[in-house]
Amino acid sequence: MTLQKKPSVPSHIQKLTPYVAGKTIAEVKETYKPKQISKLASNENRLGFSPAVSEAVKDALKEIQDYPDPIARKLKQAIAEKNAVTPNEVLVAAGSESIISILCRTFLEKESECVTADATFVGFFVQAGVMGATIKKVPVTDRYKFDVDGMLAAIDENTKMVYIANPNNPTGTYLDKEEFQKLVDGVPDDVLLMADEAYFEFAKGVDDYPQALDYRTDNMVILRTFSKAYGLAGFRIGYCIANEELITQMMKTKLTFEPTATAQAAALAAYGDDEFLQKGIDVVEGGKKDLYRFFDEQKVEYMPSISNSVMMILENEQKAVDFTQAMLEEGVILRRINAFGLPNCVRITIGLDNEMQHFKESFLKVKEEILV
Amino acid sequence: MTLQKKPSVPSHIQKLTPYVAGKTIAEVKETYKPKQISKLASNENRLGFSPAVSEAVKDALKEIQDYPDPIARKLKQAIAEKNAVTPNEVLVAAGSESIISILCRTFLEKESECVTADATFVGFFVQAGVMGATIKKVPVTDRYKFDVDGMLAAIDENTKMVYIANPNNPTGTYLDKEEFQKLVDGVPDDVLLMADEAYFEFAKGVDDYPQALDYRTDNMVILRTFSKAYGLAGFRIGYCIANEELITQMMKTKLTFEPTATAQAAALAAYGDDEFLQKGIDVVEGGKKDLYRFFDEQKVEYMPSISNSVMMILENEQKAVDFTQAMLEEGVILRRINAFGLPNCVRITIGLDNEMQHFKESFLKVKEEILV
Repeated sequence: MTLQKKPSVPSHIQKLTPYVAGKTIAEVKETYKPKQISKLASNENRLGFSPAVSEAVKDALKEIQDYPDPIARKLKQAIAEKNAVTPNEVLVAAGSESIISILCRTFLEKESECVTADATFVGFFVQAGVMGATIKKVPVTDRYKFDVDGMLAAIDENTKMVYIANPNNPTGTYLDKEEFQKLVDGVPDDVLLMADEAYFEFAKGVDDYPQALDYRTDNMVILRTFSKAYGLAGFRIGYCIANEELITQMMKTKLTFEPTATAQAAALAAYGDDEFLQKGIDVVEGGKKDLYRFFDEQKVEYMPSISNSVMMILENEQKAVDFTQAMLEEGVILRRINAFGLPNCVRITIGLDNEMQHFKESFLKVKEEILV
Repeated sequence: MTLQKKPSVPSHIQKLTPYVAGKTIAEVKETYKPKQISKLASNENRLGFSPAVSEAVKDALKEIQDYPDPIARKLKQAIAEKNAVTPNEVLVAAGSESIISILCRTFLEKESECVTADATFVGFFVQAGVMGATIKKVPVTDRYKFDVDGMLAAIDENTKMVYIANPNNPTGTYLDKEEFQKLVDGVPDDVLLMADEAYFEFAKGVDDYPQALDYRTDNMVILRTFSKAYGLAGFRIGYCIANEELITQMMKTKLTFEPTATAQAAALAAYGDDEFLQKGIDVVEGGKKDLYRFFDEQKVEYMPSISNSVMMILENEQKAVDFTQAMLEEGVILRRINAFGLPNCVRITIGLDNEMQHFKESFLKVKEEILV
């Protein structure tokens, strides 16, 4: 046998774990034949999306043979207006994952250093890893919050980027106004501060929740998405707000024609429908209160959340594995968050009443065997 | 005035030129008020797209609040079947631009070396540039073809990647079977050979056109797209075929949820409609013959093409600038290809009869002033 040489990948790519897709709804149906399926795994909007979207997409479809507007003029204008910034301070791309990737491609090199928590959005870990950057993961506090003092202490002259999600994913916790101000003040001017506000719309009504826009600095990038409260995850579209000079640099690495033409049209329509947005927020608020009550009764440890998911804290990783699997067999799809740094926790998206009912009934069915 | 420090970008990013968006149809209308607009700039399918697409998108829309299938199972299966490969040898992503970016992120590092031509798809120049790779651009032949001998001679121990587009964009020229075989044989096993077949469907009927699939090696990646012959540019979707091990590495850098759910549904529907595909190819064939005749009469230098565009060769860059602008004012949007390495050339997408008529009439109007 001869050893054939092959195209090789850099060591930092070799080290990355390839994505393993979860079971699709069709596969869950086929494998476990549950009576009902409740997809509470990906923090999507279980209410769906604004009815205005369908018409907008139908319209956009008429010219779908043409490339999309590379700078999403109309949507950018609408976002700028609603946030009282200029269109040049806005960049629209294919979802937060893409914006994180763009930021990593623009600002990081191999061996660049980033600071974040050990329990936060896995997408940042992955995209920084693709660039071969090293990540200092500062442990979250015992209340699963970003440790501001710890993170500031971890910043040194090699640090290029600090990442936080506020509210945090998957914990649902948040930095309050005082803590956020401390972070903003402490991050040096030449370090990029990424404030991922994917769950902004669910959080913005909370009294001491700091909207990053109110704390803007020239080194801050604020990330938002249409995948969560707006219910457009399938379209892949999000935006960020930052200093115009940062946006200009990011435009160099953004894929020319992201996001798609239908996504731009859908987002613009959804962005104008405050009524649907509020309905979705109300569903989540009601669902969370009810779930807290249920968990309190059942003596389940969990973190109160200001996003659209609630994190259960189990005794150990094995229980998290077994519980998620048992629930899956009942048709309730939940998310293990070991990749997010929390192997003994499970994340539950707040769904509609019938889905939450399904969750509770299934929980009661499996708890004896798994949780006790 | 104090000098404030800012987040800095690596020097290879600083050197990149930010994308400058062309005028939208709406802007052209407003600025020049032409009677008709013919968009012959971006090699889109002027016939549109398969009628099967609308229904498929309407269906996909029902679950658009959910994230897309990250591995595009159904579409991948259909592509695998049609090309007689296994699904594990196929990767679906957000258009060829994204696949090129994925390949660069997976296989290149700063200072990695690539070999290609000086006149080819600008998307490769940009994405390799984003990674800080250096590109050896081997001059095309006097017939605007990839110079196989020159490219093979340019490969050395630092070369990680060789890029060709076949047919080439923007020239419309191609490597024939013998030349392609020579290239495949000459590229070392440990160098990735990217064969970009974005215009495959227009070319595959040409006698001595080599379909890369017939020449497969373990170091070859074949890129195809739904943006051209299938008329789905607005959806951003394409695929590549390669050895399973290469696909596994690429899956590590692909954005988890690209391409979108509607794009997957649309592509699957379009992929099954051979009748529409053939119609579009026929339009292009007829349009090219007619345009060649016109150019011969008008004594315009051009390159015969096996893709869906034809390249005009003008005397110098200024004439290319002036001609493109004069045609724009008549409502005919063409593409200058200076960024592709050909400052004195202009690319014309083959459109429908009325669009080509508009092109010819406008040409006759502006030629005295500009071209003579």
